[in-house]
Formats: sequence, structure tokens, C-alpha cells
Amino acid sequence: MRFVHTADWHLGRILHGQRLIEDQAHALGQLALFIRDCNPDALLICGDVYDRAVPPPDAVELLDEFLSEMVTDLNLTVIAIAGNHDSPIRMDFGAKVFSRQGLHVFGSVTEKFLPVILHDAHGAVSFYSLPYAEPALVREKLSCEELTGHESAIKAMLDTRSRTPGERSVLLAHAFISGCEEAESERPLSIGGVDCVNASVFSDFHYVALGHLHRPQTAGGSQIRYSGSLLKYSFSEADHKKVVHLVEFDRDGTCQVDSVALTVRRDVRRISGFLTDILQGPANGESRDDYLLVSLLDQTPILDVMGKIREIYPNTLHIERPHLEAGGGSGRAPGDHRKLSDADLFAAFYQEVTGNELSQEQAQAYDTIVSALRQKDRESAIP
Amino acid sequence: MRFVHTADWHLGRILHGQRLIEDQAHALGQLALFIRDCNPDALLICGDVYDRAVPPPDAVELLDEFLSEMVTDLNLTVIAIAGNHDSPIRMDFGAKVFSRQGLHVFGSVTEKFLPVILHDAHGAVSFYSLPYAEPALVREKLSCEELTGHESAIKAMLDTRSRTPGERSVLLAHAFISGCEEAESERPLSIGGVDCVNASVFSDFHYVALGHLHRPQTAGGSQIRYSGSLLKYSFSEADHKKVVHLVEFDRDGTCQVDSVALTVRRDVRRISGFLTDILQGPANGESRDDYLLVSLLDQTPILDVMGKIREIYPNTLHIERPHLEAGGGSGRAPGDHRKLSDADLFAAFYQEVTGNELSQEQAQAYDTIVSALRQKDRESAIP
Repeated sequence: MRFVHTADWHLGRILHGQRLIEDQAHALGQLALFIRDCNPDALLICGDVYDRAVPPPDAVELLDEFLSEMVTDLNLTVIAIAGNHDSPIRMDFGAKVFSRQGLHVFGSVTEKFLPVILHDAHGAVSFYSLPYAEPALVREKLSCEELTGHESAIKAMLDTRSRTPGERSVLLAHAFISGCEEAESERPLSIGGVDCVNASVFSDFHYVALGHLHRPQTAGGSQIRYSGSLLKYSFSEADHKKVVHLVEFDRDGTCQVDSVALTVRRDVRRISGFLTDILQGPANGESRDDYLLVSLLDQTPILDVMGKIREIYPNTLHIERPHLEAGGGSGRAPGDHRKLSDADLFAAFYQEVTGNELSQEQAQAYDTIVSALRQKDRESAIP
Repeated sequence: MRFVHTADWHLGRILHGQRLIEDQAHALGQLALFIRDCNPDALLICGDVYDRAVPPPDAVELLDEFLSEMVTDLNLTVIAIAGNHDSPIRMDFGAKVFSRQGLHVFGSVTEKFLPVILHDAHGAVSFYSLPYAEPALVREKLSCEELTGHESAIKAMLDTRSRTPGERSVLLAHAFISGCEEAESERPLSIGGVDCVNASVFSDFHYVALGHLHRPQTAGGSQIRYSGSLLKYSFSEADHKKVVHLVEFDRDGTCQVDSVALTVRRDVRRISGFLTDILQGPANGESRDDYLLVSLLDQTPILDVMGKIREIYPNTLHIERPHLEAGGGSGRAPGDHRKLSDADLFAAFYQEVTGNELSQEQAQAYDTIVSALRQKDRESAIP
């Protein structure tokens, strides 16, 4: 049994104003070629298929074309779960009809936790799917009052599983496992809550295919893994090596994982230097067409700096001026604002406007309101 | 060969602030019972399945449940086209996979005009699908410069059809046929353009299943028909009798049409009278729970008139006061503003603000801008 594990495609994503749909189409084209080449038994997509609950039409079209190729041309079994960026209900559209063609979509949490079962020469392998769900929703769905936080929600859902003794089993999940490394482009699962899940809750499975974190990494054991995102979705990921996992499943459920990098249309990179040096163009065979964050060391103002740099690097998306920013008045929030959480940014804003620090009570009120809004946003028709 | 012809479901529709999703779920439940009972060979849904390009999640869920029942439980062939309210690309999601299960969805116009072919004891019947499309889009798709207006667009698309001689054929289309009767809840297909299509363009087909107009009616021949909408979607439709058509198709393509009314959860009615009479409650066994427009004949102001009437008729959605409105100043547009087109409303607004009439040039500029916006709106991610 062999399957491909991928996640966090974020179709429809925009990076610093740049629509990435062509890059995503290129990446899925590469993935399709890879799948045609290695001919796996299944493809697992572990959430955040789209970047938002109502994705743009070109993202819908791209996903449709890719899945149609997999299912109707290659007769491949595809299993996909919703992540925290996806709309569970919209994703569930057609699921029952799709499943008859080997396309198994799990948008919403259901009361019954039934696996998709595939067979190889050694018997059955059960693929269990755990779409992302707010703990409050799981509490309601399972009528389980004492359930709080993501870990207890996942435990409660796993408990509803009726296992076949000795079965080889795989789990698809979209969660934040304790101790793993985050990136800037992931949306936090909880505001002021507990979003961490201990990897030990997954110890029953022979392989756990995770989505949510954008760096490929193991999570408490070599058989519990993030594939990472399809592409680099923030400049904080410039040093990531994006891959898909090809998992070979043995007769006893031991796995061998091969991480394969797909070629990209344009890389996402950071470069740093004085303007005169940067205008010399790339060294070392790097591409001029990559998406760039340029960190400019010059201390003096420069007229039309973006225009000048884009003549050499047309896809420069952001310029930072660390020396100018360091000297820039006392009004701004301390540190790099892109690294602050929403709550910290709000606290800094409040202090700037009122001169007072945000009280603990006020901070809690902020958390409550923002959590409620996010929850609502996930299901609303028009975001 | 027998099939059911329905159209204009407008799932997600809101009537005077009232969400109609429960009424729509009830109607589709009735339709499902009817289909189980009469066991047709196919169900045709002729556009405006949803009320808007990005429908609310409960509308998506309702359509999913209904179609899943038809396709997976009943193994019924379903053919659905997009109307002017639907998003072609969103509707096309999964179409290729769905078609393998007998669910044939036509969201976008394609270069190839291929039928779904079903068989009965007398041979094949070809079902051709013509989803709604702006003429400009058809012009581009078919690279046909001289094409203007809806009639020539439809003709051009029909011309791409390669007919089998002697075939029995059905067409699904979403269009406005000349001479037919409109209702208030239909969105005009063209702004200042030519949206009428002569029924003669359809003379080649043995049956033409139309969507768009909300009153069930024939259009230039008994074999060219609107089924009308699923429910009454404006008070102007209070006198409509909503139906679905059960079409019996003979060996030579002659049709017998049986129009069947489905029971509704709540009727949409207009009542008129003085408050004291209205507060007596319904006569003639009419339901208190219907959605009502109340036309109040009293000439004096009444405190909390909606509150008083809703004690008797809880689902009163609108109250009109013809005597008060008739005396209401000179500023308003002449006549009932709900019966004016957008262009006329704009002209009246312009005149009110500036004191001058809208020139022909200005009216044309308005048409051009609004047409372009509607075209864009149909495909945009976030309307």
C-alpha cells in the first residue's frame, strides 16, 4: 500500500497582494505528474484545501480540474478533510455522490467516525478522517459537556471509533501538535484558548497524516507527520523545503516515508543589501522572477525604490527598511508588527490611542468577541 | 420516457427579510415524494437553482441532500443548468465526477454542445443543455463577432449542435421568450439590451424545458414551456399556481404534459381591509401562518400596526397603506416603486436630486456601467 500525503494547499491565496493561483496550478500540475509516475493507491489531502470559506472562482476551477483528473482519468482514491480555512458545509457538497467514485470528502464532523477502507495484498487498511472542528462544535455534536479545548475534542472523536482488532490504520487530521514549529501564514486555531494537542492521542495509528503547520516535520514520532504546505505562503517560510510525502505501508503497518520536493514556478525568497548591490541582479543562478522580500540597508530616503528594484526583480512584493524603521518615532508597537499576534497588536493600538494599558478584563473581552466573530465567519455566506 | 421539469428554485431566497429555506426544504421534500411516486426517467432543473452566485451554507446543504437522495438512493438521472442567478464556475465544481453517477450539471457554456442521451423502448432521447450565458461570453467562447443579444447567442449555440437525423430531442434553457408574462422576482437578463428570444429558434426540439419566468406557461407552442418557480417569490405571484411538469414522451416525440401542484409549507398571499376587520382573523379556512402582504385601508395613523397584525398573522411580511402613500408628498417616484425597473428608479432619483431629466446619453452610460457590474458580479468571489 502506497499513498501520497499532502496538505495546506490554500488555493486562492494572495501573498502581499500577489494572486498565487498560477503558482498553485503549476504545483498541482507537478503533483499530478508525480502521481502518474509513482502510481499510489491513494492521495490524502489534510485540510486547508482552500484559503478561505468562500474561495474565488479560479480556485474552485483549479481544484475541480485536479480532482477530476485524479478521479476520472486515474481512478485514484482521494481522501480530503477540511482545515480551519475551509467551510465544512461548502466542502461537503456532493460528498455522498463523490464517494461512489472514490473521492471521499470530509467537511463536517459527523457522529459516526467511519473509515475509508482500502486493500492491499496483506489485507485492509482503514483511513480515518478527522476534519478540523471548533471544540464547541464537537461538544454539541457529541453532546459531551465536559469537553474543552482541541485535545479533548480530538480524543472524544477518536473514542467514537469502533476499531477492528489488528487493523492497520491511518488517520487524517488538521491540528496543532505540541512542540511543533509554526510559520506566519497559519491562522491560529484558538484565540486565548488552548489549541495544542499532544501527539500521544494518536498513538493508536500506524500513520498520522497531519495538516495545519506549513513546515514539513514529524510530531512526536516518525509515523506522525506534517507534509507542510504546497507552497511558501509567507516570507517566514523562505527557508522551508516544501514537499509531499510518499508513504509505503508494510504488512505490519510500519511505514517508510519518502519526502519529495516539487519544482515551483517562482520561489519565495528574502534578499538583503544596499540598493546599488541589489541592482546588480542575482548571483548564483537565482531567478529574477522569484517573489522577493527585499531588506534594504541604505539609511537615506530613496525615490521610487520599488520601481527601481522591480526593473531588476519584477516580482518584488515587499521592501523593508530596517534602518529607517528602527528610527521611526515612538508611536509604533515594539518589535516587528508582522510577528505580533492580533491580540498584541490590539493592545498596542489601545495603548497608543488612550495612553493606558489594556486591563486583563478588557483583554478577555477582546478574546471573547474575536473568537465569536471567527466562529461566525467560518460559516457565514458572505465573509 | 417520462421526465419531471422544474426550474427557478432560488435556494437561499429571502422574501421581505424572511428566509425561505424551511419552505424550500418542505417543497423539495414534496418533490422527492412525487418523484418516488411517479418514478420518472429523469429530472430536469432549468436554472436559478440558487438565488445568488454565493449561496448561504444552508442552501448548499439542502441542495446536496436533495441531489444525493435523487442520485444515490433513487439512481435517478438529473440534468441541471445554471440560470442567471447561479455562478457558472461554482456550479461546475465536480461536474465531470458527478456525470459518472448520472448527475449532469451544466454551469458554463462550452464549445461542444453534447447531449445527455437516455433510452426507452423506442430508442434514444437526446437532452441538450443550454446554461444561461451573457451574449458577450458566448461571443467570446464561439469567436463569433457579429453575435448580439440573447436570441443570436442562443441561435449560435444551437448551431454548434450535430444532430442525429430523426432523433427525439429535448432542450433545457434559461431565457426570456417573447410574449411571455414576467413576475417581480425575476432579475432582468439585460439592462437596456435585447433579452427577448423568439420561440421559433426552438422549433427543432420535441420539448423545450424552460427556466427564468416564475409563472408556469407555454411559450409559442405547447411543447415549449416554463415550469415556473418552485415557490412564490414575490407578492406579485400571489395568484400563481406553482407546479412541476411531468412530461410523457411518445415514440414519435409527441409529449403529454401533466402539471402537478406541490403542497406548500406556507402560502404567499395578499389581504386587504380595515384593521378592525383584519384583526378578526382569516375566513374560508385560510391559514394564519401564510406569508402576507396586508393592504390596510385605514386613513389614520395606527400605533404599532405591524405588532397588532402579527398577533393574528404572525408571518405578515409587509404592510402597505395605499391611502397614506397616495397623499405622501411629491418627492417620490411616480407609481409603485416596486414595479419600476432599476433604470427608471435611477432616472427618478436623478430628477429628484438635480431637478433635470436624465438625458439619453446619461441613461446609456448608466446601462453600460450597470451591465458591466452585473457581468463582473456574476463571477466575482465575494459579491
